[in-house]
Amino acid sequence: MILKNLDRYRIILASNSPRRRQLLADLGLDFNVLTLDTEEDFPEGLSMSEIPVYLAELKAQPFDIKDDDLLVITADTIVWCDGEVLTKPADSADAKRILQKLSGKKHQVLTGVCIKTKDKQRSFFSKTDVCFKQLSDEEIDYYIEHYQPFDKAGAYGIQEWIGYIGIEKIEGSYFNVMGLPVQQLYQELKKF
Amino acid sequence: MILKNLDRYRIILASNSPRRRQLLADLGLDFNVLTLDTEEDFPEGLSMSEIPVYLAELKAQPFDIKDDDLLVITADTIVWCDGEVLTKPADSADAKRILQKLSGKKHQVLTGVCIKTKDKQRSFFSKTDVCFKQLSDEEIDYYIEHYQPFDKAGAYGIQEWIGYIGIEKIEGSYFNVMGLPVQQLYQELKKF
Repeated sequence: MILKNLDRYRIILASNSPRRRQLLADLGLDFNVLTLDTEEDFPEGLSMSEIPVYLAELKAQPFDIKDDDLLVITADTIVWCDGEVLTKPADSADAKRILQKLSGKKHQVLTGVCIKTKDKQRSFFSKTDVCFKQLSDEEIDYYIEHYQPFDKAGAYGIQEWIGYIGIEKIEGSYFNVMGLPVQQLYQELKKF
Repeated sequence: MILKNLDRYRIILASNSPRRRQLLADLGLDFNVLTLDTEEDFPEGLSMSEIPVYLAELKAQPFDIKDDDLLVITADTIVWCDGEVLTKPADSADAKRILQKLSGKKHQVLTGVCIKTKDKQRSFFSKTDVCFKQLSDEEIDYYIEHYQPFDKAGAYGIQEWIGYIGIEKIEGSYFNVMGLPVQQLYQELKKF
């Protein structure tokens, strides 16, 4: 591995997201995937940036690490628009409602990450602003029908067709919007 | 195709870049690839944003279109840092020099695009700011050795390892840095 300081660890990525697995693999890390059940609720009153960190730490909680050589990475991505978290759509009508809300304006995508070993825990987040053009109903319907974005918070994937035709600009990390802020994670792991 | 107004055209992408081909395909367009030889020189005195448009139009020039149903798309991407264009690296030492120049600062990536038919020609450009963290010599050497970025202006690909570990943030379009501003191209084609 490129990060020699991690050679002593077996790395676990606790995420079912195929996008996160791919991003971590492309970073050049060797790891295994293991997820443990957790709730995905957060208490009221948390700020926009506290929520994804809270949820990433919540996902790390069930890992009661006793081995010196184990390192667990968890992450949670939220889509924030007009003061509220946009969840995964329940169905096509819900996906359409969410995309109409995002249309023609700027929203925020935040990923919280938690790195946990037996002795240490470190959390951080990354925020990216994303600007959608005014989406037509035809474009929204076409996307939902062909891409079925029901597993995606905010009802879209930046790396899918709607990201190609709809996103005018971003400010921040592109990979963060995909689900993992790889540059920041690399820096944190480097000094871990 | 999603863009019904283009159904009457056979689309030609005049680019040898596999990244551009993939991006245009992911946009949902049917097209063929055909490149014709051109110089890639530009006159002195052009501004940062005039250069890629000039070069995209230069690539469109040899297409002397006589058919009503032909539409040609050309593009050129430049990397601009500290007031000069960074070219493709000649060798490993040159790639290292270029990446050391980009390290720890912000630079600009601009893609010019030209759409040409028998009767019409339309050109535009997109600009993205890219911020690299301070890259270590070890990281630069590792990247050059493993990725051989000799076909890339600025000696890097944002979608490769160096983009994952090195790019702190961008402002603008991610796909523009890969070589084609797909969102703007879609809008231009939609109203063409």
